[in-house]
Amino acid sequence: MTLAEFQDLIKKTYHRRDKKRGLDKNFIWFTEEVGELAEGVRKRSKKEITEEAADVLAWLSTICSLSGVDLQKAALAKYGKGCPRCSAIPCACP
Amino acid sequence: MTLAEFQDLIKKTYHRRDKKRGLDKNFIWFTEEVGELAEGVRKRSKKEITEEAADVLAWLSTICSLSGVDLQKAALAKYGKGCPRCSAIPCACP
Repeated sequence: MTLAEFQDLIKKTYHRRDKKRGLDKNFIWFTEEVGELAEGVRKRSKKEITEEAADVLAWLSTICSLSGVDLQKAALAKYGKGCPRCSAIPCACP
Repeated sequence: MTLAEFQDLIKKTYHRRDKKRGLDKNFIWFTEEVGELAEGVRKRSKKEITEEAADVLAWLSTICSLSGVDLQKAALAKYGKGCPRCSAIPCACP
């Protein structure tokens, strides 16, 4: 699945209520998932990291959609040619 | 670009130093980017949201890679069939 397809899937699934909720409240939801990911990381729980990483990505997609940002284009623009600083793969920054 | 390809790209670009840094420090870096995304959201800056969303995704990919998690599989498992709670697209939860 492409990043664009995932962003579109989340938009199709949640856009109506996300739009109604507004960008700020969606950001709070996003950070709630970041906190749950933190718990998974702290506990070294692969199961929790798997579930919460999916949630973080879903809310990140929502923030992008509500802001008119294409997450795939953003990711490719910044990392598509390797490290944004040294332009190398692997990164050769000091 | 698929989610799996993006995770692999980030791994190829940064894995050596990410592994050396360790999961906890990588999580701190991730949250730093979350904070920068917060600033973009607060300012309603599409440019900043675009750049910081890419960074958040990159660090999320790193956390997944260091935890043995396939982000694409995780995202599909949770959202591939619509809302995880009501299984509908669009979500029909009350």
